[in-house]
Amino acid sequence: MQTNELHYLTVSDAASLIESRQLSPVELVEAHLERIEQTDERLNSFVTLLADEARSAAADAESAIQGGGYLGPLHGIPIGLKDLYYTKGIRTTVGSKIMGDFIPDYDAAVTERFRDAGAILLGKLQMHEFALGATSENPHHGPARNPGGSSGGSGAAVASGQCMAALGSDTGGSVRIPSSACGIVGLKPTFGRVSRRGVFPLSNSLDTVGPMTRTVTDNAIVMNVIAGYDERDQSCANRPDEDFTRLLGQDISGLRIGVPQDYFYDMIDDEVRAAVQQAARTLEGLGAQVEECSIPALNDSISISGAILLTEAAEIHLDNLRERPDDFGSDVRGRLEEGAMTPAVSYIAAQRARTEFNRAIAEAMKTYDILLAPTNAVPAPRIGENVVEVGGVTEAKLALMPRLTRPHNICGIPTISVPCGFSSEGLPIGVQLAARPFEDALALQVAYAYEQATDWHSQRPPV
Amino acid sequence: MQTNELHYLTVSDAASLIESRQLSPVELVEAHLERIEQTDERLNSFVTLLADEARSAAADAESAIQGGGYLGPLHGIPIGLKDLYYTKGIRTTVGSKIMGDFIPDYDAAVTERFRDAGAILLGKLQMHEFALGATSENPHHGPARNPGGSSGGSGAAVASGQCMAALGSDTGGSVRIPSSACGIVGLKPTFGRVSRRGVFPLSNSLDTVGPMTRTVTDNAIVMNVIAGYDERDQSCANRPDEDFTRLLGQDISGLRIGVPQDYFYDMIDDEVRAAVQQAARTLEGLGAQVEECSIPALNDSISISGAILLTEAAEIHLDNLRERPDDFGSDVRGRLEEGAMTPAVSYIAAQRARTEFNRAIAEAMKTYDILLAPTNAVPAPRIGENVVEVGGVTEAKLALMPRLTRPHNICGIPTISVPCGFSSEGLPIGVQLAARPFEDALALQVAYAYEQATDWHSQRPPV
Repeated sequence: MQTNELHYLTVSDAASLIESRQLSPVELVEAHLERIEQTDERLNSFVTLLADEARSAAADAESAIQGGGYLGPLHGIPIGLKDLYYTKGIRTTVGSKIMGDFIPDYDAAVTERFRDAGAILLGKLQMHEFALGATSENPHHGPARNPGGSSGGSGAAVASGQCMAALGSDTGGSVRIPSSACGIVGLKPTFGRVSRRGVFPLSNSLDTVGPMTRTVTDNAIVMNVIAGYDERDQSCANRPDEDFTRLLGQDISGLRIGVPQDYFYDMIDDEVRAAVQQAARTLEGLGAQVEECSIPALNDSISISGAILLTEAAEIHLDNLRERPDDFGSDVRGRLEEGAMTPAVSYIAAQRARTEFNRAIAEAMKTYDILLAPTNAVPAPRIGENVVEVGGVTEAKLALMPRLTRPHNICGIPTISVPCGFSSEGLPIGVQLAARPFEDALALQVAYAYEQATDWHSQRPPV
Repeated sequence: MQTNELHYLTVSDAASLIESRQLSPVELVEAHLERIEQTDERLNSFVTLLADEARSAAADAESAIQGGGYLGPLHGIPIGLKDLYYTKGIRTTVGSKIMGDFIPDYDAAVTERFRDAGAILLGKLQMHEFALGATSENPHHGPARNPGGSSGGSGAAVASGQCMAALGSDTGGSVRIPSSACGIVGLKPTFGRVSRRGVFPLSNSLDTVGPMTRTVTDNAIVMNVIAGYDERDQSCANRPDEDFTRLLGQDISGLRIGVPQDYFYDMIDDEVRAAVQQAARTLEGLGAQVEECSIPALNDSISISGAILLTEAAEIHLDNLRERPDDFGSDVRGRLEEGAMTPAVSYIAAQRARTEFNRAIAEAMKTYDILLAPTNAVPAPRIGENVVEVGGVTEAKLALMPRLTRPHNICGIPTISVPCGFSSEGLPIGVQLAARPFEDALALQVAYAYEQATDWHSQRPPV
């Protein structure tokens, strides 16, 4: 194998080679560090690069494996973490100036789990400031190029072969948006499936932790490591462990897939619409029963998600908003101020509307195993532009980007974005597949079937 | 048996007599209607008396029982409902002018359950306007005399023999406060144990439905009828039915009872303190391990409960608050306005503090099976007085009355108030016993053991 191809190996292929000692973690980490050196000046994915620590961990992994201590599919695999996952002794900026010098004194639960699985942390990845925005245009650390957000560094790093897998976080779409924009696979798991201990919060009732990878199998492999009950996180579901790869490769014929016609197509790029329609036909060709359906409650997504997200975020940042408002980027400060001024009765009304929304989604999912929709309404817009033209309408970029991903956070259902095409400019397009709560493995199954039937995932967007 | 004693029969005794056909529901209902006629001008317990309907239902019950169709311990038993339980075709004012003409077109879940059990509804009972206050001094329907609140009509009616059992609702103490003030037994069940469908809400995250009776056994009998899963109420716990009488009479020796020294005794009448201390010694005499303990988090009760209750209430009443503010009583309007002006960040901070509070209570209840505390800091204060002198301090009556009952609503644990003495003026005093979530039957067991060892419950307060 050529070293210059190692950075585009999948996790599953690399794991086989490492387990059979055909590939050393040291070699794999060096290939990725080299790739980062070649590309990161342009991409700006990394806030903190941990080259020495990664080399040392890779050497340890190599010794352990040679000594018969192979830990499993992430042993020796180079990964990255969005810079809001606490890493003990390692700066965790949350994409901000305010926490620019913050060094946590403990690890996030997922940081622990990666380490216990033998994964090699290459560094901390770029993001929208405090995860409050879907572009990763960061006034403090510069823009990541050009992945959407808020987990933009994670998207760019995985897509470009800087690391083999990364974690994003998803509150209104921040895993799925950059995954779609970068042509990779991103899963927002069921709310409560992955511990949030040591994850700097954006919005407590919406935040989720999710893997970003180049294939569906790799995504399931990461889920096997990060998911599970954690009594230290009150929102974490007390459920037994499960194997998220268990349904991969199983036939999807007979599964019912609903394609809601409300909301998702009100403001959408023509090429995105066409690619998503084609994805539905592909799934139909695999034997799924695909039907258009109507869920009018979806039209409440923006008002519900907006009121909840901004107020919960403002409560977290209230002291800094009062004491050092100028240390926030102006877009983030403006939205936090909006949240801080919202009356409680509006928040409570939004939570009440959320209950009705969730009832409507649950009702639809009595019929449909999967709900299919576009992930992003447009391919990645240009950095520095504040508005986007779409379907004859001009919309603020920060409003448009998370528009189609918000519904799934409101109701907490597992939702995976997979590549489903490219625009005429060569930019990736994604389709999202949502399953019932705690049926993350089913979403992975359908995504895998689609991935195997197409080859979008093996085509690389421009770096 | 003398008709003039029938109104003070317990539910359990009356049920035996009815089942064995020694007592007719018709006779029992007539005795209660007579008692109401004798006393209600003074007590003002009933907003709506359903004499004709009750007589007709009693005749039906008599026929059914004579025909071998005995339904169980509430068959033919005269009961009352706080006037916020929906009764199809029967006015439900919620103690207000605003809903003075409201006639629901469906029954509350508990209304249905009482009917299905054969209970006879005598009428709808007085309450504090919209349940937002702990005195039952109602500007629209006059004060109930003099039971505390907000379920004041329920307390007065049960204590005086106007009905054999009633439902109150408890958001910050509204079952327990009047139960204590009236010398009866009141249970606030575990949050989610009894359906709230068709119960006009005060505060969605705090409201509970609870029985008010003259004995602990009667309370358990009512719980057997009203508790259970209801898929129409999203907050209702999906748990199997249980027999709430199952632990009554069992030995309490070895049970661990904690007596928190924080918060409950900061502002308390000396006679109340002495009666509650004596109750603890009585339980110790029955073999329980009684210990003083410390739960500092209790000191956050007012700030947490206040912020949550007033904002959730304001959200419910927002339209009327804008459109017809003068139709609220001035005390209720003032508090709703306070809730309407509270920022969302304060509400969210209170919910966050609630999580910490609940953790502290759960931690204490790893050690203690029961937490014991006074129910009301003072015996029932006089109607029309706005402040109360207690322990050398002057406190607003509306703040003092729910002070000691709020903590249990925050964390949702089952809590029962039982009579434990009388003041030198002859006014009843109550002690509250709280158990772990869904251990309602254990709270009833300990209350029963205490009741059997004392005779406070058989002494009547003045009517």
